[in-house]
Amino acid sequence: MTKIVTIILMGFGRVGRAFARLLEEKRELCSERYGLELELKAILELGGGIVFSRFQERSRLLKNPDLRIQDDRSWNPGLTLEELLPKTEPGVLVDCTVSSIKNGEPGLGFLNKALDCGWHAATASKGALVFDYKRLLNKAREKGLKIKFGGATAAALPTLDVGLCSLAGAEILGIEGILNGTTNYILTRMDQGLSYEAALNEARQKGIAEPDPSMDVEGWDTASKLLLISNAVAGTEFTIHDIRVEGITKISAEFLRAAKEEGKVVKLLGTLRKQGSRFEAEVRVSPLEPGHPLFGVSGTDKGITFLTDTMGSITVTGGKSDPRGAAAALLKDIINIYR
Amino acid sequence: MTKIVTIILMGFGRVGRAFARLLEEKRELCSERYGLELELKAILELGGGIVFSRFQERSRLLKNPDLRIQDDRSWNPGLTLEELLPKTEPGVLVDCTVSSIKNGEPGLGFLNKALDCGWHAATASKGALVFDYKRLLNKAREKGLKIKFGGATAAALPTLDVGLCSLAGAEILGIEGILNGTTNYILTRMDQGLSYEAALNEARQKGIAEPDPSMDVEGWDTASKLLLISNAVAGTEFTIHDIRVEGITKISAEFLRAAKEEGKVVKLLGTLRKQGSRFEAEVRVSPLEPGHPLFGVSGTDKGITFLTDTMGSITVTGGKSDPRGAAAALLKDIINIYR
Repeated sequence: MTKIVTIILMGFGRVGRAFARLLEEKRELCSERYGLELELKAILELGGGIVFSRFQERSRLLKNPDLRIQDDRSWNPGLTLEELLPKTEPGVLVDCTVSSIKNGEPGLGFLNKALDCGWHAATASKGALVFDYKRLLNKAREKGLKIKFGGATAAALPTLDVGLCSLAGAEILGIEGILNGTTNYILTRMDQGLSYEAALNEARQKGIAEPDPSMDVEGWDTASKLLLISNAVAGTEFTIHDIRVEGITKISAEFLRAAKEEGKVVKLLGTLRKQGSRFEAEVRVSPLEPGHPLFGVSGTDKGITFLTDTMGSITVTGGKSDPRGAAAALLKDIINIYR
Repeated sequence: MTKIVTIILMGFGRVGRAFARLLEEKRELCSERYGLELELKAILELGGGIVFSRFQERSRLLKNPDLRIQDDRSWNPGLTLEELLPKTEPGVLVDCTVSSIKNGEPGLGFLNKALDCGWHAATASKGALVFDYKRLLNKAREKGLKIKFGGATAAALPTLDVGLCSLAGAEILGIEGILNGTTNYILTRMDQGLSYEAALNEARQKGIAEPDPSMDVEGWDTASKLLLISNAVAGTEFTIHDIRVEGITKISAEFLRAAKEEGKVVKLLGTLRKQGSRFEAEVRVSPLEPGHPLFGVSGTDKGITFLTDTMGSITVTGGKSDPRGAAAALLKDIINIYR
């Protein structure tokens, strides 16, 4: 009994490519272990797309790592999601585009259209959900559909699954997370003696930091992930304006030295705390004691600690944060939609 | 839309009591958040049991922390699960008795009876599953029922959920786990200079070690948990005889000292490794390097690392290992049965 699941992929950048390849690689496993035949039906980019009619075409496209899909012979300029969705058997829309947290676009439009046409969605992008969390989740619920965003909250580090599945029945009293690999890498290198500028440059050269690293170093990426995790797991209804955000750009060498002398290590921490019956969230540069469960999370690694009423404190660390890790998180989300 | 779920609890020791109390405490949350009305219908012990006809009776029983249920006025001597199951609307059998890994009893009988009568099962006890994993799981699958055993694999530390849900679609290449709190406590104290005997005595006095600690210190508890996790997550079909097991009783002070001098810390590690297409499992005293993700897991804490093909290495640590933590794991499992 195999279920065929149609997939439309939005975006063919690094994560989109990794996802398309992973689908091919895991074809047999998904069918044998989960009874799912995941069928990549189309890839869309801004400006057009490709609809696959035969397996061979997809293979050809994926075999060429440098190909811009716009240059492929089956490229269909002007093809849009709006046009494609209604004439395709509903499955999962996979969003690998990059969306703004200021207006949620372009992802917000994609996700809304998908839900309107009866499609589930899995996204590796935070923007749409950070901007319009409540409305999107409500719409999905009303229609009996699912929006999964594990890949948007820290790639392969399982944050939402643990919060929702492993902590079912527990009250979340707090969350602490090192949720951004770029800033954690920079802080780790600063702890080893580099200046902020030198550490940032090194991160850029290694492809860890993006050309414009402001979302990361000013704390907004951490804040966005914290928002999504809190809203999903602790039932908050935060918008990005509810979170006090501080970045790592103004840390002084003295601050780091003082922390180090006390045996502490400095991290950019996303924190949720229950104060009375309300939750408060902030992103802050925080020195951690050696006994802290996130103390050893260094370099581009990430980690999250959930504090609960009945299960004590539970920490998850690790998980690849490269495109393949994000792709693996998308695949996991798709499998779990159909479980 | 609330679903009423009938629960029969086997065993009213420390975990059973904690579970019954937790059900009362979480009544409202389960109904509001998960739409489940979890209805503790009966508690059975060897020799008899109590069937609750009214809410008040249950409250009275739970309010008295020292009560042996055999002394309660509603105690029904001779009542058996066999008798009770067929005349009760099927729900979840919760097994909090202690079962032998040598023959799986008494849990094996309870679980089989439950499945035969169309009941799901959640167990905090390893014995039955370690002894007869494949048959029990197959029986449940054939009948469209679920057996959950998160509470048996490390109380509130989420091992199975992470392996099954968060790593869906990934291949497990290996597992390393500190899965037994008693031995980890003893090793932590030995690392601080105590002899094995002194550390064991201290653990006994603190109620960490059981009066007969052999299952723990000889490695069988770790082996049992490793077996369950491997079979569930990596698809192995291990019996306890397939695992090479070593305990902590013969560690020399020299061995510990040598490890310490190299900056390492000694742990009792349950390890699964893929060798070619086969998996090998063992329980072994292992010195860990400072960079190892389980390096900081000390005292009664536990932790597990999954090595995967697509998501890198993912580590979970923490989680209460007291009766309340085990009860919380049972509650989580019940909620997840009905999701």
